[in-house]
Amino acid sequence: MLDPTFAATPPRFDAEFRRQLEQLFRWRRDVRRFRTDPVEPAIVDSLIELAALAPSVGNSQPWRFVKVNRPERRARVRSNFERCNADALDDYAGERAKLYATLKLAGLDRAPVHLAVFADTDSVLGSGLGRKTMPEMLHYSVVSAINILWLAARAHGIGVGWVSILDPDEIAAIMEIPQQWRLIAYLCMGHPEQEHITPELERAGWQERVDFKQFVFER
Amino acid sequence: MLDPTFAATPPRFDAEFRRQLEQLFRWRRDVRRFRTDPVEPAIVDSLIELAALAPSVGNSQPWRFVKVNRPERRARVRSNFERCNADALDDYAGERAKLYATLKLAGLDRAPVHLAVFADTDSVLGSGLGRKTMPEMLHYSVVSAINILWLAARAHGIGVGWVSILDPDEIAAIMEIPQQWRLIAYLCMGHPEQEHITPELERAGWQERVDFKQFVFER
Repeated sequence: MLDPTFAATPPRFDAEFRRQLEQLFRWRRDVRRFRTDPVEPAIVDSLIELAALAPSVGNSQPWRFVKVNRPERRARVRSNFERCNADALDDYAGERAKLYATLKLAGLDRAPVHLAVFADTDSVLGSGLGRKTMPEMLHYSVVSAINILWLAARAHGIGVGWVSILDPDEIAAIMEIPQQWRLIAYLCMGHPEQEHITPELERAGWQERVDFKQFVFER
Repeated sequence: MLDPTFAATPPRFDAEFRRQLEQLFRWRRDVRRFRTDPVEPAIVDSLIELAALAPSVGNSQPWRFVKVNRPERRARVRSNFERCNADALDDYAGERAKLYATLKLAGLDRAPVHLAVFADTDSVLGSGLGRKTMPEMLHYSVVSAINILWLAARAHGIGVGWVSILDPDEIAAIMEIPQQWRLIAYLCMGHPEQEHITPELERAGWQERVDFKQFVFER
């Protein structure tokens, strides 16, 4: 619910807010190890409400949030993950394969909240504005909503993990959703077992962070 | 530069921080009307540094940031936008076409900072982890970086506008970048002329926000 005082004057953010915002970005993490205690449903709803404040191309609001509650659906998602993950492991050899096999790549086993997020590629909202040359903008808008939700969750101490080792068409079938919805993310949410400032894949020795300056260019 | 005190203990965010974070989400905006006074280059660099804290699939860090400084390059981007925008206008008729023609859809004319953001689809970082079944995760990772940059900019009072009415291949050619880089966003940045809590496309009568509850489902 919008706090009515918010609309009165544009906010001025100070250095202390920016410092905390930087802490939020630095401690966000993709979480795969969850405690099983529940997250208050009202908090999940408030996170989805904030997510819907994300930018969207032409104001098309293409995000569709599916709370996955039924145990049999969650079990089918888990087995899809296991199949896709075994298949991915086959692509690696030697030490890399051994390391891959030790990684925990999803929190599907214990996370109390499962949220599948789709893009409605057939939405009439926005009348197609801004996506003639870049139709993928519709999907990117949903990614933006996921990022807002992720940051807002972390500000509540709630961890989010984005599972992408899934067959998107099979997940769509499991969810029985309209045909024109495309899976963008399957999110696990809950209280994290541990908190870290360093990504799990870096701690595990899979991939370090590199200096961002390498990725900045001038033209 | 990382404040070393950040790494010591996980932050606990309080209700006041969450309130300001919500204000940030609500007042973010896609800005198309900029003042021409410059943005301090050190701030732009710090925003890019924060953007590189975004989640990325397999920790692949596929973001490539191109500061577009040369006037002749900016001029070619502007004419590409004008061509694509005229072409898009042709898709509308009657009142909708009239309204489309009045919309200001990019701040390319006056924004002091232009930043083209690409995904390196050939990056070896992350060794392909997490993107076998959903290769688009690489592009989504770059969208996440853009979202962080956008929010961090707004916390400094700097507006960002995402221009998508462009031919991505032509923009890539103008920038003379490696062939495997794909345009994700062309960003205009600068101090906004005005600040609004409501999206410009809503104010202009193009597309209203709808109640987010319509987009939440249970399965």
